[in-house]
Amino acid sequence: MTPATPPPSRDGPRTPRGDTVGAVNNARRPRVGHIAFLNCMPIYWGLARTGALLEFDLRRDAPDELSRLLVEGSLDIGPITLVEYLRHSDELLLIPDPAVAADGPVLSVNLVSKVPLAELPAAPRVSLASFSRTGVLLGKMLLEERYGRTPEYRVTAPDLDSALEGADAAVLIGDEALRVHHDPQGHHVLDLAAEWKDWTGLPMVFAVWAVRRDYAQAHPGLVKDVHLAFRDSVRLSREEIDAVVASAARWEPFAPAALAEYFDRLQFGLSERHLAGLREFASRAARYTEVKDLSPEGPEFFTSGL
Amino acid sequence: MTPATPPPSRDGPRTPRGDTVGAVNNARRPRVGHIAFLNCMPIYWGLARTGALLEFDLRRDAPDELSRLLVEGSLDIGPITLVEYLRHSDELLLIPDPAVAADGPVLSVNLVSKVPLAELPAAPRVSLASFSRTGVLLGKMLLEERYGRTPEYRVTAPDLDSALEGADAAVLIGDEALRVHHDPQGHHVLDLAAEWKDWTGLPMVFAVWAVRRDYAQAHPGLVKDVHLAFRDSVRLSREEIDAVVASAARWEPFAPAALAEYFDRLQFGLSERHLAGLREFASRAARYTEVKDLSPEGPEFFTSGL
Repeated sequence: MTPATPPPSRDGPRTPRGDTVGAVNNARRPRVGHIAFLNCMPIYWGLARTGALLEFDLRRDAPDELSRLLVEGSLDIGPITLVEYLRHSDELLLIPDPAVAADGPVLSVNLVSKVPLAELPAAPRVSLASFSRTGVLLGKMLLEERYGRTPEYRVTAPDLDSALEGADAAVLIGDEALRVHHDPQGHHVLDLAAEWKDWTGLPMVFAVWAVRRDYAQAHPGLVKDVHLAFRDSVRLSREEIDAVVASAARWEPFAPAALAEYFDRLQFGLSERHLAGLREFASRAARYTEVKDLSPEGPEFFTSGL
Repeated sequence: MTPATPPPSRDGPRTPRGDTVGAVNNARRPRVGHIAFLNCMPIYWGLARTGALLEFDLRRDAPDELSRLLVEGSLDIGPITLVEYLRHSDELLLIPDPAVAADGPVLSVNLVSKVPLAELPAAPRVSLASFSRTGVLLGKMLLEERYGRTPEYRVTAPDLDSALEGADAAVLIGDEALRVHHDPQGHHVLDLAAEWKDWTGLPMVFAVWAVRRDYAQAHPGLVKDVHLAFRDSVRLSREEIDAVVASAARWEPFAPAALAEYFDRLQFGLSERHLAGLREFASRAARYTEVKDLSPEGPEFFTSGL
């Protein structure tokens, strides 16, 4: 083994070099977060086709951990769940795309209950069976503000049986939620992004991609490169969606048709309507958790002159 | 955030699903080690162009850590420094390519000294300024067996100044070794792969790619896929070497010409001559560390019927 360079995780400027090997090069690849979950596959798929991956120091982790790393400054650019972004929007600038959103049903963020919604008691026992802060908060908002319930919450493992044991309903997110959508086994399944749209008329934004404000000021060119690479990746994934589906179907527990429908529901950019949905969610989120005030024109974006 | 599937690092079989989402799919991506060092860049570069990366659960770490993970069973397939492979060859099968080798100078595995080799004292103080077990062992072999010295070794930080402080010579490997090759600053630089060739007439193999024997038996098709993906990657990197060099030159502290020369010196497959060099190294390594006996026809390969 001849490790000719340190791993990209070693930060800090390099030592100046002799003239024989050329000019000093202190550049370091931008540290970019990578979510390996199914809902982000079309976002990252194209990066592995265009070669853009090689220009990033890509760090894979769970969504909540990536949010934390971005906030603490261990990532330069990355996905962040909407709630965490709203709590730290003064340190971050949004990148217009990618994002994870849905304008109507999203299939994988569900309230699952044993009885129809209308028959839920006034103070239902509700399981929160996910680490997804935004999806969980969406469930709370709808239950409390739209359906006028006063739930008793508890946190459970992210599977249907654990979640419904001794509970009236469960907020279920992700793989297990998508499975229950396809196979409800007699349960009542409410798509929370569809409910949000029905309530507010707006799309639901689950996650955004953001850059640290200090990094964007110091390296606008690199941030632009990352933005363009993600944009190209999503475009390529849309164009070659059959290949994305085939690759996903090889490893994920869903049939190609189910995966194709899911990728079609998911939206990976932020339009004006998405921003209106984001602002609506932000104003309601303030009742549940500390969030930074967004200006009326907010959120604040990284502008690369694209 | 809607994590629709668990991260690939969650192992174990999946729960059977309802018929509505298709057949049960218990597949899990092979866990493959990734060295992000410069000398492995042509091995991984093509993976980010062909899309093959998406079929792996790629885990990036330092070479010594990846060796450890493969041996303990936390990786299925990965790079392993030759010395560690020789210590654990009964649990592993070699994959014919990729590998990291050189048939003559490798540029980045050097003995650096203040005086010419011939003037080194009989018991020189020698710094081992690297975590690379194979490169360090190569340095010891040459010093003790070829040059008849009885060195006093000490381990130091992997930079020239630390390594030569209070020492007669240093085994220097990687980035810093390549830098000193280009800018020796009055020091004497001996290329250890060139010395090995001069001594044995054979190429030097620094790292191999191996699969755990149990995994190869259970999933021969997946191992074949990984092998083919690496083979395609190295071929593509050779074809598009200018693009590889340009990408590396953007981030690494070496000029394009130096990088092109380095990639040209490195060899990424195992020919019969490489295997002879590997066996020669193995027989000598037994004097320094516990290694498994290789059969006369060894090492044992994964055979995919290619």
